[in-house]
Amino acid sequence: MSASHPDFDAGIAADLLERLRRTAPRVHCITNAVAQHFTANVLLALGAVPSMTIAPDEVAAFAAGADALLVNLGTLDDTRRDAIPKALEAAKAAGKPFVLDPVFVNRTPVRCSYAQDLLTASPTVLRANRDELAALYPGQDPLEALSRTSVTLAITGAEDLITGPGQTLRLANGHPLLARVTATGCAGGAVIAAFLAVSDDPVLAAAAALTVFNVAGEMAAERARGPGTLVPELLDALYLIDEVQIAGRLKRV
Amino acid sequence: MSASHPDFDAGIAADLLERLRRTAPRVHCITNAVAQHFTANVLLALGAVPSMTIAPDEVAAFAAGADALLVNLGTLDDTRRDAIPKALEAAKAAGKPFVLDPVFVNRTPVRCSYAQDLLTASPTVLRANRDELAALYPGQDPLEALSRTSVTLAITGAEDLITGPGQTLRLANGHPLLARVTATGCAGGAVIAAFLAVSDDPVLAAAAALTVFNVAGEMAAERARGPGTLVPELLDALYLIDEVQIAGRLKRV
Amino acid sequence: MSASHPDFDAGIAADLLERLRRTAPRVHCITNAVAQHFTANVLLALGAVPSMTIAPDEVAAFAAGADALLVNLGTLDDTRRDAIPKALEAAKAAGKPFVLDPVFVNRTPVRCSYAQDLLTASPTVLRANRDELAALYPGQDPLEALSRTSVTLAITGAEDLITGPGQTLRLANGHPLLARVTATGCAGGAVIAAFLAVSDDPVLAAAAALTVFNVAGEMAAERARGPGTLVPELLDALYLIDEVQIAGRLKRV
Repeated sequence: MSASHPDFDAGIAADLLERLRRTAPRVHCITNAVAQHFTANVLLALGAVPSMTIAPDEVAAFAAGADALLVNLGTLDDTRRDAIPKALEAAKAAGKPFVLDPVFVNRTPVRCSYAQDLLTASPTVLRANRDELAALYPGQDPLEALSRTSVTLAITGAEDLITGPGQTLRLANGHPLLARVTATGCAGGAVIAAFLAVSDDPVLAAAAALTVFNVAGEMAAERARGPGTLVPELLDALYLIDEVQIAGRLKRV
Repeated sequence: MSASHPDFDAGIAADLLERLRRTAPRVHCITNAVAQHFTANVLLALGAVPSMTIAPDEVAAFAAGADALLVNLGTLDDTRRDAIPKALEAAKAAGKPFVLDPVFVNRTPVRCSYAQDLLTASPTVLRANRDELAALYPGQDPLEALSRTSVTLAITGAEDLITGPGQTLRLANGHPLLARVTATGCAGGAVIAAFLAVSDDPVLAAAAALTVFNVAGEMAAERARGPGTLVPELLDALYLIDEVQIAGRLKRV
Repeated sequence: MSASHPDFDAGIAADLLERLRRTAPRVHCITNAVAQHFTANVLLALGAVPSMTIAPDEVAAFAAGADALLVNLGTLDDTRRDAIPKALEAAKAAGKPFVLDPVFVNRTPVRCSYAQDLLTASPTVLRANRDELAALYPGQDPLEALSRTSVTLAITGAEDLITGPGQTLRLANGHPLLARVTATGCAGGAVIAAFLAVSDDPVLAAAAALTVFNVAGEMAAERARGPGTLVPELLDALYLIDEVQIAGRLKRV
């Protein structure tokens, strides 16, 4: 681990969370139709301010006025396809971080090739699972390919791997019931964007984001009877979570 | 306060609510993608019947067949931009009331100018916050500009101001936790539309709508642990609220 | 009742549910904007894997890769109109079952005529209420018209009627509070699609689907205070429901 990076721990996660709640960063989300409502509620519960418009002639103003941008490809219709490059360009021109979440690129070649183009814009964080990475980098080792770039990679799954310039972290918080609720992964990408808005270190921001989200998921799962009651409990936990709970549950591996 | 208007009180709010529950008015909503699902559930919990289509060649039939129309600009894509004038025209031709909610007009000039055009169609109620009003009436006093029209204005915030021909009301119900749930403001606009369907007096309808919604929000906040559990509790409260609760909590200022 | 069909009972419903949970079928849903989020959560709670994209150049790949397809006409914009025939063609070519839910065809002629065209593609199951059926088959007896086809019809309402080649069933589970939550009917159509993925008998699949969904609705209504708390309770019940509960509550009429 490079000496230039402070080591990730619960104190760092809690400090960034406190900064997020105090500064209420704006996060513009171009995300899929299924995830929009839940993602907005996750950001609000956490203390960020979401906006969600996908109109191509408006996204540049929203992205430039936001503190971070999320681009999620879950439902990639023509309007979103037109809007995404405009939002990216505006965010980059304004020096704002952005997260790319290439949902389901392993399911259609059209979407995969669209996502490969977006990668050339160097997202601050690429959030993906292993199947999506394999589709994006056919015949290559994705980690090796990305190690030659400035992109921080967050591979999410039962265990999360976060790797960026100079630092690699493995985290193991979360709960299986989260996979029985739609858009929890997509909302996790928005939480990474919110933390990027309050930190210059993408590895620490992504680690703090996934830790806060997944620890809140554990707290919620203990109170829930199933995936239905998990949703309100998760939003409450994101609103209520504090450093003591993060410290008591953080699992690095 | 003009003598031609009965003074607003809990009895008026409860009478209109009872009429709404008895007649189950249809409310057609052209609203943003984030708010559609929650808005439909708010209207159903209250006793109204929502429809939500935004297809330009269908909205005229839906708007004409409904008892009131909501136009919310939260996510203003091309389909919605085409649909809105058609829905407005059909509602006006059929003599149906409509609410305009110019969400985020202070964020992009495209949207602001689109909303200014809609204002010439004289919405029954314009629901906005102070930033949105300032954008719609640059260099003017919005209240003075609107006082020369038939439009009833509902300015929502910590305190709500409702002002229309001959009457001005100030209301102070609500709870800060409502701001931590997405689309509560947008759903409030739909509730105003539902009350317009059962009253000829837009000031009283808007006052009853905001009172019922905000008192239900207070009832819900007392049972909730955070913004997650607030949502189901709010919908339950809209379903269960009665005159005793309205009378016990109504705050005019 | 034809001898070639086993008679529907709680054991059949529970067996299909168990098969569904074990095999986690993929269900691609082209459904309305209001229902997308809730439908995805219903399918996940039940044990199926939803996908929801409506992009015309992607739906064929998603439909062909899925185990069943749902087409719901609730919000019928241009993108969905382009996507639906492509998805249908891909599903039929791959031999996958599909459910047609012609929501609100009784409200606009444009939509009705679009739905009548889709009927020529012979959906495995047509789910509709009596008003929608009357619009689809003007001047005819819909049951007689459909009896000359291979389409299984599921008429939903206070009582459900399921009728297909060789068998007719009447079921009476459910709870009035379900009608106060948006998209419960639409989600029910997706549940039928999920059960079609694990059964070759459309009548039994539809009967099992509606029984599981409506019994879960009864279990949820007993724990809920209103339509707000009904939603998390319903998703929990879909996750937790077992053969004992189905057997104890199944109502055939």
